[in-house]
Amino acid sequence: MTFARRLICTNCNKEYDLSVRNACGNCFAALNVQYDYEKLGRYLREKIETRSHNIWRYKELLPFYNGSVGIHSGFTPLRKAHRLGEKWGLKNLFLKDDTVNPTGSFKDRPASLGVASAVHFGLEAVGCASTGNLAAATAAAASLACLPSYIFVPNGLDSSKLDTTRIFGGTIYKLGDTYDEVNRKANLIADRYGWGIVNINLRPFYVEGSKTLIFEILEQLNWSHPDHIVIPLGSGALLDAVNRGYEELISLGVVSKGDKARLSGTQPFGCSPIVNAYLKGSNEISPIKYPDTIVKSLAIGDPASGYEALDIIRRTGGWGDNPSDAEVVEAQLALAKTEGLFVEQTGGCALASVKRKAEDGKIDRSEVVVVALTGHGYKTLDTTRQFLDTAIENSESLEIAV
Amino acid sequence: MTFARRLICTNCNKEYDLSVRNACGNCFAALNVQYDYEKLGRYLREKIETRSHNIWRYKELLPFYNGSVGIHSGFTPLRKAHRLGEKWGLKNLFLKDDTVNPTGSFKDRPASLGVASAVHFGLEAVGCASTGNLAAATAAAASLACLPSYIFVPNGLDSSKLDTTRIFGGTIYKLGDTYDEVNRKANLIADRYGWGIVNINLRPFYVEGSKTLIFEILEQLNWSHPDHIVIPLGSGALLDAVNRGYEELISLGVVSKGDKARLSGTQPFGCSPIVNAYLKGSNEISPIKYPDTIVKSLAIGDPASGYEALDIIRRTGGWGDNPSDAEVVEAQLALAKTEGLFVEQTGGCALASVKRKAEDGKIDRSEVVVVALTGHGYKTLDTTRQFLDTAIENSESLEIAV
Repeated sequence: MTFARRLICTNCNKEYDLSVRNACGNCFAALNVQYDYEKLGRYLREKIETRSHNIWRYKELLPFYNGSVGIHSGFTPLRKAHRLGEKWGLKNLFLKDDTVNPTGSFKDRPASLGVASAVHFGLEAVGCASTGNLAAATAAAASLACLPSYIFVPNGLDSSKLDTTRIFGGTIYKLGDTYDEVNRKANLIADRYGWGIVNINLRPFYVEGSKTLIFEILEQLNWSHPDHIVIPLGSGALLDAVNRGYEELISLGVVSKGDKARLSGTQPFGCSPIVNAYLKGSNEISPIKYPDTIVKSLAIGDPASGYEALDIIRRTGGWGDNPSDAEVVEAQLALAKTEGLFVEQTGGCALASVKRKAEDGKIDRSEVVVVALTGHGYKTLDTTRQFLDTAIENSESLEIAV
Repeated sequence: MTFARRLICTNCNKEYDLSVRNACGNCFAALNVQYDYEKLGRYLREKIETRSHNIWRYKELLPFYNGSVGIHSGFTPLRKAHRLGEKWGLKNLFLKDDTVNPTGSFKDRPASLGVASAVHFGLEAVGCASTGNLAAATAAAASLACLPSYIFVPNGLDSSKLDTTRIFGGTIYKLGDTYDEVNRKANLIADRYGWGIVNINLRPFYVEGSKTLIFEILEQLNWSHPDHIVIPLGSGALLDAVNRGYEELISLGVVSKGDKARLSGTQPFGCSPIVNAYLKGSNEISPIKYPDTIVKSLAIGDPASGYEALDIIRRTGGWGDNPSDAEVVEAQLALAKTEGLFVEQTGGCALASVKRKAEDGKIDRSEVVVVALTGHGYKTLDTTRQFLDTAIENSESLEIAV
């Protein structure tokens, strides 16, 4: 099957059927084959739409395919937030709910690709350096691949995070007091044992998994462009992957060339190196030595993909925003109390930015806004607990003797 | 549009076009209108398949429709468990993964219907009596309905369960030491204040929500029948709702009349009043006074819908099974370590029964088995923790100086 449609003159644009001919009859310039991108796009969309609801739906745009790993990850709901939208004056607020991935965060996407690449290269074990969501995601993906997993963490990590990794059979190694130390040692271990550490020596493949987030968003919007996509920035790698995937679908004709969404980033005020640079109009990202925020998943002071993220925000006409911890909690609770959805602080951060931007007019009332909710509230229940404002009563507070 | 096809003689089955005629020309018996159920079924299936992915997809078979409540509940994945199936010798093992409902359990289904009915009747507040999953589900559904929620619990409930309810704005009332006491007082409170208590005075509507589980299972199997459906039994109400919904789809022609699945029930050995009766061949269900099991969601000694459940198991050719707590944990860990999915003990109980029945030949290797996984593992992490067998190491156990 071909989508070549006709010949077209490179100079005067005169068109010819596909035929034996080497120059324009009009101006004698060379001829190019022109493709029907619209038809090609439709063909690809229809092909995708018949497939299973997981990350492999878009397998041609992922580096490796694995029929076992990742089959339960991805194709999470894009939820219309009617009530929260109403509260904040937005008629088309959509939530990309990645909390329902198997281990409760978007990390199931890249972890699946990391583990699939380890299988491809014939490695005998996988692992990751992590302080949180990636630990469980890697162990779970490894279990589907029948590979042992070694999870490198700093000392003093919350025991819930360890237990939700151990359930999948992951062996935990406590490697030091800081994440930097863990990272450095994990590098050495990977070399010594020949293990695949998904976010270190398999990183190029690992990050590709996150592209599936934008593929799904666009498909779930019937392949149309939203006006805004709001992504939490830790290392900045998620925004980078989202932008890359978006560009791929545009260049393949799966979505149209015009009207690409503005891509925006959010970081908490207490650790917002990328957003600081954006707000100052600077090209320099100054690392934050001592992050001070309850949004632990985004407390990355020296973001590895910071410059890429900054560039994407500027090129797409997006914005960077850094709400306070108080605003983060307010937005997290607002979501729970209007939509009945419970996300970790990272989602609260993204939502708080949406609220601010709706207020200051950067988002118009009728624009289509998609917010990535990257992790489930169960993940950070200990942090959330202290902010709960609803009461625990006993029967004496009721006007009835029961 | 009608699906009436022809007239048919009630005595000799002679057929006539739809015409002005009141008796059979052959034997003079009365005539009935015959409908094209196959066409009607196809029509209904097509209508359903165009709809949003939530419980309201099947709104004609639910007592009330509410455009706000429940929009994020339901249409959870039916996952093929390739690796766990392989381990247990089953080629077609499917997991109905209700852990990805907004509050992490199947209770989002009935709670949504309970709250929708409260809105219908114009009640000013909703609530529930709960020791666990229903608390969060009711508070979350209430938040979508803009109604205050009052959650009645026993003293001494785990604080995580309270906090994951408070996040949705639910006010907690501790009403006594036992669930029975809570239940009794909640009844009085409902009367005094005119509140809708979803599992008490709104129970008939509440239970209807659970039917959506079987509607989805059958749709996700392309409207074909599985061979076995395995449901955890607490009160027995879920199995009863599943059977009712199943019968409705059969009578409407949405699924075919023949080959209805065997419906089976599972309870933990330490509290299996329904299964005990099944195993003894008895029609009498003896309450369990002191449930002794780690499967807390199924520790209901005197199940309200026990007789209905027992009857359904027998009528559909299903089985009752009661694995030990050790088998429950083994199955829960086997799921995590093969499929990367983390469920609470209740799911482990259902899976343990499947394993036993595959071993003793009650389930054939190639039969299609659907297991309801009703709650997320995060819900009972404290219980699970003690059974984790994977190690926590430090760098000294590695053969490298790092």
